[in-house]
Order: sequence, then C-alpha cells, then structure tokens
Amino acid sequence: MEFEESGIGEECGVFGCVAAGEWPTQLEVAQILTLGLVALQHRGQESAGIVTSNGSTPPTYTTLKGMGLVSTAFKPEDLLKLKYGNLGIGHTRYSTTGISELQNCQPFVVDTLHGKIAVAHNGELVNAAALRKKVMRHGVGLSTSSDSELITQLLALTPPMEEVDTPDWVARIKNLMTETPTSYSLLVMHKDVIYAVRDPYGNRPLSIGRLVPISKLHSAVERIVDAESSPVSVHRYHREVQPGEIVQISKHGIKSLSVVPRPEGDPPAFCIFEYVYFARPDSIFEGQMVYTVRQRCGRQLAIEAPTDADVVSTVPESATPAALGYAQESGLPYVEVLCKNRYVGRTFIQPNTRLRQLGVAKKFGALTDNFAGKRVVLIDDSIVRGNTISPIIKLLKEAGATEVHIRVASPPIRFPCYMGINIPTKEELIANKPEFEDIAGYIGATSVRYLSVEGLVAAVQGGIESCGEKEQISSRTKMSKRIGHCTACLTGKYPVELEW
Amino acid sequence: MEFEESGIGEECGVFGCVAAGEWPTQLEVAQILTLGLVALQHRGQESAGIVTSNGSTPPTYTTLKGMGLVSTAFKPEDLLKLKYGNLGIGHTRYSTTGISELQNCQPFVVDTLHGKIAVAHNGELVNAAALRKKVMRHGVGLSTSSDSELITQLLALTPPMEEVDTPDWVARIKNLMTETPTSYSLLVMHKDVIYAVRDPYGNRPLSIGRLVPISKLHSAVERIVDAESSPVSVHRYHREVQPGEIVQISKHGIKSLSVVPRPEGDPPAFCIFEYVYFARPDSIFEGQMVYTVRQRCGRQLAIEAPTDADVVSTVPESATPAALGYAQESGLPYVEVLCKNRYVGRTFIQPNTRLRQLGVAKKFGALTDNFAGKRVVLIDDSIVRGNTISPIIKLLKEAGATEVHIRVASPPIRFPCYMGINIPTKEELIANKPEFEDIAGYIGATSVRYLSVEGLVAAVQGGIESCGEKEQISSRTKMSKRIGHCTACLTGKYPVELEW
Amino acid sequence: MEFEESGIGEECGVFGCVAAGEWPTQLEVAQILTLGLVALQHRGQESAGIVTSNGSTPPTYTTLKGMGLVSTAFKPEDLLKLKYGNLGIGHTRYSTTGISELQNCQPFVVDTLHGKIAVAHNGELVNAAALRKKVMRHGVGLSTSSDSELITQLLALTPPMEEVDTPDWVARIKNLMTETPTSYSLLVMHKDVIYAVRDPYGNRPLSIGRLVPISKLHSAVERIVDAESSPVSVHRYHREVQPGEIVQISKHGIKSLSVVPRPEGDPPAFCIFEYVYFARPDSIFEGQMVYTVRQRCGRQLAIEAPTDADVVSTVPESATPAALGYAQESGLPYVEVLCKNRYVGRTFIQPNTRLRQLGVAKKFGALTDNFAGKRVVLIDDSIVRGNTISPIIKLLKEAGATEVHIRVASPPIRFPCYMGINIPTKEELIANKPEFEDIAGYIGATSVRYLSVEGLVAAVQGGIESCGEKEQISSRTKMSKRIGHCTACLTGKYPVELEW
Amino acid sequence: MEFEESGIGEECGVFGCVAAGEWPTQLEVAQILTLGLVALQHRGQESAGIVTSNGSTPPTYTTLKGMGLVSTAFKPEDLLKLKYGNLGIGHTRYSTTGISELQNCQPFVVDTLHGKIAVAHNGELVNAAALRKKVMRHGVGLSTSSDSELITQLLALTPPMEEVDTPDWVARIKNLMTETPTSYSLLVMHKDVIYAVRDPYGNRPLSIGRLVPISKLHSAVERIVDAESSPVSVHRYHREVQPGEIVQISKHGIKSLSVVPRPEGDPPAFCIFEYVYFARPDSIFEGQMVYTVRQRCGRQLAIEAPTDADVVSTVPESATPAALGYAQESGLPYVEVLCKNRYVGRTFIQPNTRLRQLGVAKKFGALTDNFAGKRVVLIDDSIVRGNTISPIIKLLKEAGATEVHIRVASPPIRFPCYMGINIPTKEELIANKPEFEDIAGYIGATSVRYLSVEGLVAAVQGGIESCGEKEQISSRTKMSKRIGHCTACLTGKYPVELEW
Repeated sequence: MEFEESGIGEECGVFGCVAAGEWPTQLEVAQILTLGLVALQHRGQESAGIVTSNGSTPPTYTTLKGMGLVSTAFKPEDLLKLKYGNLGIGHTRYSTTGISELQNCQPFVVDTLHGKIAVAHNGELVNAAALRKKVMRHGVGLSTSSDSELITQLLALTPPMEEVDTPDWVARIKNLMTETPTSYSLLVMHKDVIYAVRDPYGNRPLSIGRLVPISKLHSAVERIVDAESSPVSVHRYHREVQPGEIVQISKHGIKSLSVVPRPEGDPPAFCIFEYVYFARPDSIFEGQMVYTVRQRCGRQLAIEAPTDADVVSTVPESATPAALGYAQESGLPYVEVLCKNRYVGRTFIQPNTRLRQLGVAKKFGALTDNFAGKRVVLIDDSIVRGNTISPIIKLLKEAGATEVHIRVASPPIRFPCYMGINIPTKEELIANKPEFEDIAGYIGATSVRYLSVEGLVAAVQGGIESCGEKEQISSRTKMSKRIGHCTACLTGKYPVELEW
Repeated sequence: MEFEESGIGEECGVFGCVAAGEWPTQLEVAQILTLGLVALQHRGQESAGIVTSNGSTPPTYTTLKGMGLVSTAFKPEDLLKLKYGNLGIGHTRYSTTGISELQNCQPFVVDTLHGKIAVAHNGELVNAAALRKKVMRHGVGLSTSSDSELITQLLALTPPMEEVDTPDWVARIKNLMTETPTSYSLLVMHKDVIYAVRDPYGNRPLSIGRLVPISKLHSAVERIVDAESSPVSVHRYHREVQPGEIVQISKHGIKSLSVVPRPEGDPPAFCIFEYVYFARPDSIFEGQMVYTVRQRCGRQLAIEAPTDADVVSTVPESATPAALGYAQESGLPYVEVLCKNRYVGRTFIQPNTRLRQLGVAKKFGALTDNFAGKRVVLIDDSIVRGNTISPIIKLLKEAGATEVHIRVASPPIRFPCYMGINIPTKEELIANKPEFEDIAGYIGATSVRYLSVEGLVAAVQGGIESCGEKEQISSRTKMSKRIGHCTACLTGKYPVELEW
Repeated sequence: MEFEESGIGEECGVFGCVAAGEWPTQLEVAQILTLGLVALQHRGQESAGIVTSNGSTPPTYTTLKGMGLVSTAFKPEDLLKLKYGNLGIGHTRYSTTGISELQNCQPFVVDTLHGKIAVAHNGELVNAAALRKKVMRHGVGLSTSSDSELITQLLALTPPMEEVDTPDWVARIKNLMTETPTSYSLLVMHKDVIYAVRDPYGNRPLSIGRLVPISKLHSAVERIVDAESSPVSVHRYHREVQPGEIVQISKHGIKSLSVVPRPEGDPPAFCIFEYVYFARPDSIFEGQMVYTVRQRCGRQLAIEAPTDADVVSTVPESATPAALGYAQESGLPYVEVLCKNRYVGRTFIQPNTRLRQLGVAKKFGALTDNFAGKRVVLIDDSIVRGNTISPIIKLLKEAGATEVHIRVASPPIRFPCYMGINIPTKEELIANKPEFEDIAGYIGATSVRYLSVEGLVAAVQGGIESCGEKEQISSRTKMSKRIGHCTACLTGKYPVELEW
Repeated sequence: MEFEESGIGEECGVFGCVAAGEWPTQLEVAQILTLGLVALQHRGQESAGIVTSNGSTPPTYTTLKGMGLVSTAFKPEDLLKLKYGNLGIGHTRYSTTGISELQNCQPFVVDTLHGKIAVAHNGELVNAAALRKKVMRHGVGLSTSSDSELITQLLALTPPMEEVDTPDWVARIKNLMTETPTSYSLLVMHKDVIYAVRDPYGNRPLSIGRLVPISKLHSAVERIVDAESSPVSVHRYHREVQPGEIVQISKHGIKSLSVVPRPEGDPPAFCIFEYVYFARPDSIFEGQMVYTVRQRCGRQLAIEAPTDADVVSTVPESATPAALGYAQESGLPYVEVLCKNRYVGRTFIQPNTRLRQLGVAKKFGALTDNFAGKRVVLIDDSIVRGNTISPIIKLLKEAGATEVHIRVASPPIRFPCYMGINIPTKEELIANKPEFEDIAGYIGATSVRYLSVEGLVAAVQGGIESCGEKEQISSRTKMSKRIGHCTACLTGKYPVELEW
C-alpha cells in the first residue's frame, strides 16, 4: 500500500529451498517456501507462485499459483498438494493489474527435450526487445510479455536441443548470461538441483543461507536461497551469490560453479535503492545490515542538512532508522509524532469526493503532546511524487507544530529505472516538475533538504564523517572498487549502455 | 452434471465472430461471443475464454479468461473491457480439474515475429506426442500439455520466421494440416481475420452462419463461426466448414481459401456421437437436424428391438426425441414417467453414506399415475458405466411399474477415443465388464436392448425402413461416400492409424 | 429464473424431519433436511436455513443460514456442524433482494421464558398489520418486517409467560390460529417435537410422510413433514395436514392434536395455483397427482378451445403435461418445437442493448423439422405479463410455422394475492392492460384462448367431460364441499374479508 | 492478530455522525461512518454494521452489515445504497466466531409502536441474566444472546407502549440506566436524533467531536460521537460524554439532557486497560492523550524497576511509548531491536508441525547490529498468557543479546472482566499459573518485572515521581475523586457487586 502511494516498487521476490538428508523428506518444503514468500511479500503483492519437485527421474513438478497476497493466493488445501516436494522455488510478483494476469505469475515451468525446468526471476533484462526478436526469429511464439518466459525460451534454445545428448543447463545459463548483462537474480530448478544465478553487475540481490535446525528430530539442514537474507527469521545467513556467479544447490550442498565476468573496467552495480527503500531493515547486503545503513543515512543527513529545531521524528515506519540516526548525530531528542492506522487503505471509498483528500490524514493520527508548540524535523526516506508528505505536514501544523522541516534520507529521484524497479514516469516525479523549484512551498513545509548522492553513497559504502564514530567518507574510495552501486535513478548514469 | 455421471464428455466448444460494416463498430462483439459460449456451455464447463481484436495495425488484443461456467468465469465489469473489439474468438473447455488449470484455458495468444495470433481448438491431435518432440527438438519450451499451445508453436515454426517477409498464415495452417491429420476444428485469429479450419477427416464439427439483423439501427451483419450451428438462436445457419477446408472470415465476407485432401480412399470421419449425445438437438450437421436424427434412432430401435409393453417413455431430457420416435414407430403411447429436479447435483453432501445411494433417485420424481400397473419401455440415449440407469429402474418399479424394458438408442461403447472425447477407461465401460453378460439383471431391468451399429449408421445417414416414411436404408450406401462417420468408440476402427 | 420472467412466485418452502429410533442417532438429519430443501428449491431461491435440535433437556439448537440457492448457502463444512441433530426444520425463501436480508432468513429461533422455539413459515398473514400493532403495543420491538418473526412473538406473548408454569405450546398455537385465519403452513420446533400446523382454510400445502428405510442397518424410520409430498423422492407420502389441524411429530410417532375450525359455512381455500404452476408435477395434493391435474387442464382446454391445426406442442418444461393432455383430447399429434438452453439466464449481459431483446430467443432453440410449414398449437401454463411468449412466437414463425395458436391452460390472472404469492402489480398484469383486448395481435399469435375459471376448477376438482374417460364435470359440485379452492387471483373473491 | 495472540480484546467500537446544515445533505454520512469504523477497527474485527436514517417523518433507515473487517464487510456498491442518509450510527464487533453470527452484528434496528430505533452498544451488562428473564417474563422472545437486542427490548418495554402517546425515548433510556448500572456506551438513533449514553460508572469510553470543515464548499459541520476521540483524524475532539450522561446530537447541535448518578460514594470506574492496551495512542480520555499516559507508565516502570543494562527497546508497536518513557527516565539509550513483518499471521500453515513453533519468530526479524553483545531491556505493554514473549527472547539471545530483561508496563492480569473485555480464563492467565513463580525462567528472560497497580494508577491519574518533570504522585489523591478507574482484572475489585 505504501508502494502504491509512493509509486515505486520492486518487481519481484524469489525464494528457493532444498531439503537436505534422505528423500522423500518429511520436511515441509512447501510450507517453508510459503513462509519465505510471506517474508518477501513487501517485494510483490500482485501474485504468488510455488513450484516443487520431488527430485526423482523423471521429476514430478507441482505448481501452485494465485493472485494477490500469499495468504489470498494459496488456500490451505492447495498447500497439501505440494507436500511431497523435496525442493522448490517460489516467486512473488509486483503490481501491474489486469484481467488475465495469472498467466504472468511465476515461476514458469517449461517442458523441453531434456525435461522440465522451472524458472523464477527478479529483475528486468535491459536488452529484452532484442532478445525477444531473436527468439521469435527462431520461430518461437511468446505467450506473455514477461522476461521470465523469454528467459525460459532462451535457455531452451541454445545450444540447439537436437545436437546434444544431455541438457547441460549450466552451459545454457552461461550462454544466457553472455547474451544479456543485467538485471536478473534467477532461480532455475531442474529435477533435483536449483541453480542460483546473479547477473554480472549484481544489480538485484540474492543470498544463500540455511534453515536453523529446530530440534533433534529434524537434524536435516535445508539450503535456502532468496532475494534477501531475512525472509525466514530462522534462516541463517550464509553468503550472497556474487555478481555473475552460478551456484548449484542440491541436497549434497552448495557449490559455486562459475563466475561470468563483467566487461573489463565496469564496476558492480547493486541497486542502491535496496538500501534506501525496498529491503527489509533486518536484511544483510554486502556484509552490512540495511537498518544500520539507513541509520547512517540519517546521520549523514544531519551533517549535510542540520536544522534548528526542537524534536526529530519519523514518517513511520520505514524512515525510523534514519530518524534515529539524525537524532543521534544532531543531538536533538527523538519523539514520535504520528501513529498509523494499519487498517486504513483497504476500504473502498468512492473516489472523486472531498474524502479522497483526507486519504493520508486518516492513515495517521497526530500524537499532539509530543510536538505541540515545537519545531519538528520530520525524516522521510524518499519523496517520489510529493503527494503523500503534504497532508502529513498539514496535519502536524494543524495539531500545533510551529515549524515542520522535512529532511529526506535519499536524493531526489529524477530518472527511470530499466532494471526491474517500477518508477513513475519522468513527468510524475516531483523532482522533474516546476513545483520542485519551491518544493517547501509546494508541500507546505518550513524547509526541505535532501541527502546528496555523495552522502548516500558514503553512507552505503561504509563511512560517514562523524565525531562520534570516526568513520571516514574517504574510506569509500577503496570500497567502491569492490562494491559499486547503481545510482541511475538519481544520476541518469546507467551501468550498461541501453539498447532501444 | 449429466456428463459427470455418464462419464463421457466433449473436449471443447469454439466460437468466433466478426463484425461487418464500419469499424470501430458499436456492435457488441464481446457480448455475442459470451452468448455464443453460453450456447456451447454443454461442450465444456471447466473454463471459458475470449480474445477480441480491434483489427487495426498493429492490432490490440484483449483477453478474458476464467474457471467454471461462462457465468462464473466472466464478471460483468470484465466484459466491459472487451467492448471495443471488432472481431474475436472464444472457447469453452471440458472438465479435467487441477490447481493451476487457468493456464490451460484457451484461446491461446502468442506473439510471433509477424505479430500476434490467437488460437482456439476443439479436438485432440492423434500424433501429438511426435509433434511435441519435433517442436522441442527445435529448442522450444512448452509450458502446458495442451494441444492448443502445440498448435500455436507449430504455426510459428514453419516456414522459418526469419526467412519470410510476411507471415502467410494460410501457408502455415496448410503446413500444420499436412503434419497432423486429425482431430481439430480450429479458429486462428490474426489482426482483422479469423481462419476457420476443419481437419481433413472432418472429425469435429464447425459451421458458419450470420447474426440476424435485429433492427434497422443495426443493419450490419456479423459473420459467425462455431462448433455447432445453433449457439445463438438468432444465428442463421449458413453452411459447415468442409473437411480439410480453410475459410477466411473478415468484415468483407466469407471466403473459402483451400481444401486440404485426405489420403486417397479414406472416407470422412465425423464423430457419430455428436448426433447421439453431444450436440444440441437444434443443431444442424451435414444438412440434417440432430433432433430428427435422434428421432430416427428411436424409430430404428423400435424396428430392431420391439417390445410388448403398455407405454413408452424417456430418461429426460436428452432421450426424448428417440422416445418419441420409438413411440411413433411402435404405435405405443408416449407418456412421461419421470420429472427432474434441476437443482439437484449442486449440493455438497458428505460422501460415503447411504445418502449417496439416493443420488439419482432424488434427481427424479416418479409420475406414478402415468405408469403404475403398466409395462414401461424406457428409452435412454446411451449407457456408459451403467450406474445411473439402475436407481431409475428401481424408482419406477417401487412406484408400480410391472415391467421396465430398457431400450438404448445407441450401441454399447467399448473403445477409447483419441480424438477429443473424454471416455472412461476400458475397464470402467459397462460393455467391457463381466456384468454386461447379464446387463438386465445387473441394472434390474426386465430386458435391455441396444441399437446396432448398422442401425445407428443407417439412422444417421438418412434412411430407415419404416412403413410410415418409406425412407430406405439402402440409400445410405450412396450417402456414405460423402459423409462417412467415425464409429471408433463402438467398433475400435479408428479413421487413421494411431501412433504411440 | 422462470419465476423472474413470469413475475409470479411462491413465497416459501418448509421442511421438517424427526429421526425415529434411539437418540443420539446416526441418521443424517441435517443432510436429509438439505436434500429436502433442494427438492423445494423451486419454492424459494433467495435464502435457505436449517435449525436442528438434539432434543435433550435443555435442547441445543444449531442454526445454518445463507443467501441464495441451498448449494450456495450451505458449505460442506457447515453441514458437519449440524450433524448431531436428532430433529430439525428447514426453510427456503423467495426472492425480494436486499443488502441485509440474511436477517429475514428463516427458521427464526427465539428464546422464551420456557425455552427456545424455532419457527418456519410459508404463507402471509392477511391481518399482519393489526397483529404487528398488537404485539408492539405490548412493548415488543420487531426487528424485521417478516410475518415469521411476528408469529414467534405472538406465540411467546399469550398466555402471559409469567402466569404459567409450563409452556403449553399447543395452546399458544391454537391461540395464534384464532387470531389469524390464513395463510400459513407452519412448523414449530420445541426441544424434541415438531408441530406441523396448517391454517383453517388450508391455503398453503403441507404434507406428512416418512423416509423409506434404505437397508437393515438403518431400520429407523424418520418422520417427515414438508410443503409438498415429493421433496425427497424416497419420501413415502403419508397424508396431508388437514386445514386447521395441529399435528405433533416426535420420535414416538405422528399425532393429530387438534383441528381449529373455519367460520361456519366457509369452504376450504387451497391455492389453485399450486396445481397450475407452483408445485412439482410429482407432488400429491388432495389425493391427486399434480401432473395428472395439469393433464386434465390440457384436455379441458382442448374441449373449450379446439383448434384447427397440424401439431400440438409445449413451452418446456412446465406446460408439457397440459400439452400432452391437449394432444390426447384433440387427437392432434404431439411434437417438440423448442429446445431449452439450461445455462442461459445466468450470464451477465449489459442491459439496455438490443441483446436484451434476444433474451428469450436465445433461451430456446427451434426444432425446425418438427413444425416448418405447419400450423402449431402451443400450450403455455399461464400468461402473466405477456412478455415471454412473444419472442417464442416470433422464433417459431421465423423458423417456418405457418400459424401459431396459443392455448393457455389457466385463466388470466387479474387480481393481487394477499396470501403468500408474489404477483406483479395489477398494472403489470397483461389481463388488466388495454393490450389484452387484442392479446393475439399484441403477442403476435394467430389466436389466443384461455382455460375458463369453471374449466380449471373442474379439472382440479376431478371431472372433465371427455369421451375417453367419462369423468363428469357435474361431479365437482359434490366435491367442492370438501375441497374448495382459492381462485382469488382469477376472480377477485378472497376466502376471508381483507383488513386494511 | 495481536489480540488473538495476547488473548484479550475489546468487545466493540461504536461511532455516530449527524450531518449539520440543510437536509437532504450532500455530505457523505455513510462514508464518514465507514472511515470512523476503520479507525475503530482495532476494537472489533468480527463484523461491522452501519444504519443510516434520512431523518424524515417517518424516517427511512438503511442497514449495511457484514462479517470481517470493514473492508471485507462493506462492498463499494453497498455503500452507495447508504448515501442519502443524513445521520447514522455504526458498530464494529469483536471476535467470537460462528456460522450464523451475522445476526449478532450490530446496530440492531427494531420497530416499535412509536417508530423504529437503532441501537449500537459497547460493553456488557453486569446484570444481563436477570434482565433477560424480566423481558422474557413479559412475553418477549429474544432471538440472540446479545446484550444489544436485550437493550432494544428493554427500551421498548417500559413505560408500557400502549399507555403513552409519544415515545419519550429519553425517559426510556433513563429507565434503562436505572435498571442496569454498567457497562455500556450506547448510541440510540431515532428518526433525526442520536442519543449518546454512557453508563453511570463511565466504564466504556465515549466522546463527542465534530468533523473539520474541509473547504468552503462544505461549510456544514457534522457532529460526531465515537468510542475514542481519534477515529477520523479530521475529527476535532470536543469533549467526553460524562459518566451517566445522556447527550442528544442533532443537526441543531449537541445538548446534554441528563446525568444519571451513581450510588452515593461510588467512584467512577473507567476501564484502566483502555490506557494500557486497547485505545489508539492518539486518543484522548479524561483530558489526557493515551500516548502520554503510556509514556508515563514507562517512566514509572523505570523508577520501580531500574535495570543495569546497555539499551532499552520495545516489542513493536504498542509498547513503544512506554519504552521511550523508560529510556527517558533511566537515561539508557533507546534502540530498535525487532522489525515486524506485517504480512505474517495471515497465511494458512498446517498446524501441529515444528513450523508452528516458529510462529512468532518469523513475525519479527532481529536488528542484530543494535544489540549484539549488549544487555537489553525489552519493554512490553502486558503479558497475558506468556506465550508470545518467549520466542522473541529466544530470537534476541540467539542473535547475540547477552542479557534480556523484560519490563512490563502494566501489572499482571489475574481476574476475569465482566464488563465487556474478553480475557482468557483464569487458568490460561500466566499470572495464575505455577510457572509464574519463576516467570523469568519460564519465558527464558534474564529478569522480569511488572509495573505495580499503584504505579499504573499513578501514571494514569497524572503524576509520576520524576526528577525531570516534577509531576507528583501525591497529586493523584485529588484527581482520583473525579476520575476513579476500574482495575478489576488486576485486583479483583469490581466497581459493582456482581449478580450471578
């Protein structure tokens, strides 16, 4: 719901699980997949899907798909049908609505000359148009506009099926990776193996872990691969799949098969907005917890944009770590000024009425005692279209705030993303509108300041200039060699040249 | 519901419609398609789908699909989305249930190098396994087990897309027809044209008509193509698509493009069970009304299996024409002995109880006055598994019938169908069970007699020996040359050699 | 659906069942009630409800209610909750739609000083307004506009609860019957007993039967009471509850407790439209099968309104017995001219289009061979608003009928019903419109004739003048003393004076 | 969901709204009621209902009810039907599940001799059993077990309807209030007026406000009455209905009609758990914001139960104000240690597996960086059954917390509530179990301390001993005279003697 309001959204979440130990297993692979998808629900609420395999020769695959949240998409009786899987992959998909969208729901399963494969994909192929043409020129009809179907057909296509005796899916995956540089985090399931693949630029996240053994009765250890490290909190984070890496996950263990390199000189390009906005705060990327990065953003923001005010607060809940960081760095007291009604946003109210104008206001209540008669610094994580912060400011002022200073813990979004993030059109972005000239006046704030691109990169790449912790921005130069980030939506500099 | 009980069922119904006159039209193509599918509902209740095209360059296709009856599958608000179509095709699908079956729902739409095509298919390709292998050998992944997806990929495949400038869909369809002899009635929509295709054996029905102009405000005449001639009763029957024929239907008219011949010496093989069971009684095949054929079956049955009885009656509603024919021929009075509760069969009653035994009984009430103390000839259209007629006989006897003679207006089904009809396994067919030896004893009837295969063919092919109408069985020899029928499920003689 | 079109409808169906033998019983009371309601579904499709009692002291009642058909209203898991009932009553309710109508769904259960009673009611109290005022004057608030809630409060009210030690429900029911003369067929369940009550005029039907023992394992015999004799076809008809009678049904048997008399000189007034239209053809009222009465109506119609024509046919399915009777009496051959699409009427088509005009046409297909070039007598059971027969006539004429003579097996409806039947307003009834002057011209028929009131009463009351059966109309004089009928909707003569 | 876990829950929320200005109004009364119920959703998720009146003579009432959350219960098309209301009342109901519970859904509407009234009720009548008997002795049948139906019948009953010419609802309400002392907050709508009633002990909250005028086009000011002050954030808090007060709300304004007194010497008894747990933090009771009271509870807890630790944190989200208060008072830094997955808890997972044990764990992710290697004070608002905190402690310890001290910002719950709060049985309450002896050991905490009853009362009644703010506990003596609170669930001392 927040996503709808802000207008930006992750495309997808992917999750895989292999039961270790003897097969057929008593372990609840389908249920773990379901829990994993619930934990990734923030990455896609349009539809959900699971494919399990029993891992035998030939394998039996079972598919479960549905529209909406995981809780809506899967009925309890459906889950029972999946219970004999020994491994499986799952997918949650982001928003675009439509009548017959179930056909776009992943994972995709296709039958090939060498058996069935199932594919779940997070990301967006930058050269999709050219690849579609290539596949269709070969005489293949494509039934959806989804990159994931395109990927399955590309995997089936080369090398020619008829010329090989065994499928060699790894070679096919490598071949795919040479045809398209980014962006994808990919799970390919074939019989008893899951291949976890991350594009050479590492644009989308993918990490590997294992399920904590719960008791002696269940000594087996499942291997888990997912979009973020946190999905199941009993998931023990192991490591990330490296940019360009193909990792094979089977009941025998985790094995790195290959690393497809980037063009010489190109740095990696992990999406910096994963830190700013998309990921759960307890997820770990590049060795650091997202929450901590967000807190650093807040501290950096306090350095860049100090405010003469009485209290610091947050637009709950995503901006809270940045707000606490700002409070820490600035020395101003942290208080809560808004309480959220979590039931709001699900009710059907006739549009085009004045009630619509109350949309955000009713979502939040003002905790008046904490700020009446005071100057408030309100931290938000990002401002995309500028239509959600405005009623909040109005609410605070009416409830007695003498000043409301907006401090945004990320730079303005100005450019479209072609790598899997749904961003409003350039025209819709507040940063590209004439109103941005006087953004404070437009949204009714006393003042508005954004974090700089350099500040964001510094906070992400580990250092901030702070008297407290002595972390140095200078340290980021060294760091950037190994962990470069994609800032295209902020700077317009895309990691690869775009084909049109 | 009847289908579930009898255990045999048509695979599918197909329906197409092109608005004549100026485009964009005000004519309700989507609504006519919906009505057409409702009229074909008896041919498939699992799912329903519609694809409309606006017919422009490039065309915009809109798809609507759903599980269950047309009334369940399409919501009113969904239909609105289709309203600007100028032509379209639709499909109803028969029974096999499963979790994610929506993906099997037709029509299939695929994007090819030369644009999108939509395909709706009724039938079953006898050499599907070989064709699947061929397509997959080419490097294509198949995402369903459906013949219809296979057909779309075959159409995309040959001749190679890259070697031609224009699609020439007709050549591709012809090529498909040479690769697979039967069975299919096919609608292929491309931009502003529908190709109506019937396999060279003419196994599945397909006819062409036009919508009656309703008023002067709507002087345009839509062209209609559908599985049966009767779907919309305002549909004016024009003619059948001939075996092997490709007919192009556009706003400019109906044009026969080609007829792909059968192997020399092979007669056509239109499914004889369309007459016996599947089709609506008001449909017209081969120039004759189904109702009339069924009535002839009843008269032929009266000749072959006369009965010393007091009254003739029917198992409503499908056997009524045969019963009236039997009454006419035999001179026995026709009465109704059963009344049907049309709400039965939709309620969830716990299985495995004695209530289950009452299943059929409660579906019918006995009209005691009409047969108490009398000898009844009860006509049924077919006996497949023998489990539905038995409780009816019991009901009649308990209500006072002194004798109940079962006369079946078709021969026993003994063999599987590989051409699109869902028939129980050989083991389930009563005609293959030991109990068939004493079928009368098994079902509790005073006597049981079936129509002979020769008698059925005679009735279908136009002649019966009857004092009343002087139609001659001998006339059928001549007729059979042009209108041979598939009787494989009765005789085991399939129209083509089966590949395994 | 037919009801919607014709615009007349029964208000309700009631059904009760008591398990005989030892309690707790293994017999499936809830399931038998469900089957009973399905069999009464034609008497009400708006909602369905069941209340079961375990019969102990104090009793536990379990309630199940839902909107729509029985199959929609009751989920399988819900039925399980009722499974331990030893007796129960059920109700199906007719049409008036609305948002919060579930609260009008019967049976009503109320808690009184002397325990809970459950009430199911078919009919309409002619003096409801006065009774409501009386109850409210006593200080009772009424939460619905339903007569059934009114009945429960009336039962609770007199004699004053506080003045009696035991409830004496029979005295309370008798008291109710003196306060309101008609119309009601009532089931009152209290603990381990069902009281079956019919108003002194016998306006609504109610009959008693028993469930056929199925096997030795189930030797117990349930007692059944229901609106019609036919609901469960395994129901063995025992007898009708007499006008004014209170029958007690318990596991110990069936016991007539009392008969409350009508005012001296008043004949009984069983609704004659039960025979004409509402009841199932296999039901038995007053010792005669409804089907047979309808057939007699057809024969009487043939005598009153003979036609110079070639064939006789029916508007399926309800007019078929009358059509067969007409054919028998007239000597004209009976054929089928229309086939029905039973899926039609459930699809959402946008209104206000020309497609709406096709409404009825698409519901029926023409069996052209049977009447093309012929003069058709088409029998209908009733014409209420005249808007459904017109498109049928058009269809037949367009398909080749040279003449279409409409013969209606009942007289024109001219007056409203205040005793439980939903009839269109006087203005909507075709018989009250100017168009009725030239009804044949209005509906496009060659000629139109109705059965006379006298003819209908004759057919119902047992005699028709016919060469075949020599039953004498004169015999009805004698008969009418014991079995008078309400013909108010045809004649305007109501059985009791109406209060306003 | 939280409620399910903790096992305690408010019974209901009530909300009313009267449009000021000219009638018929263009103001969206039904939509404001809907928003109001959404804002009260935390007070009841079982069902929701709205009744609007057009206010004319006689009034037309329209009712909308449904099961589940407001968003599920009301369809957009349903809301349209309510749009012409000029005033209305609404209700959300808490949890007890069942098949036919829609009939328990409020508001109740009953028709009386003096017209219809609608009643919405929050609370539970302590002498309900005696009142039911009284009503039934009068000859009234009660169709539900709900206190609200009982209230409507009590209102209808006395004084006798027949003896008065005008209803005088206020006299009837006063009469009701003398018959039952507590607990109820009641809205009674009659024609064009809402009576807002609070029981003499003021046990349940009820406050009055007005809707902020949005623009000049909508200059009218609606009057609003609701369970809490905060429901619609555009609601301007005006004042609380006083204990025993009857307030009349009409388009002409707000008018206090009467105050029914408590027995001499009895203090008021507002439910103290409204502050601790039920109410939204932005609500205002007795002139103070709930958030601020909770913060004071945290500070008082820091005084009563200081801890030698490194960081203070919260079980999000309800304990956050107390945690911030504890941090403030103790000087320990406040950090977040848990992040919540708000999608968890809605998925169907097969029970009885080890996955069930993971229930809470997966609901929270650990923000490891903030507490690894540290001693954590974790503040919770209450511990009811002790089964939710245990897995959280385990999660924190596994993630590196060296010590986890639980501090509970309310005293242990030991006694049942008979005034409208659903509390687990005495046996289920952890405070009554043997395990409570070593509660820290039982739940795995390093230490556990609760706030004292005196401390809670002090915090609620305005003073805490704190170096910072110098608010004095001593001040509460004075305060308690006017604002006594019900602490029965903590102390067993009920405000009135209970009848059994």
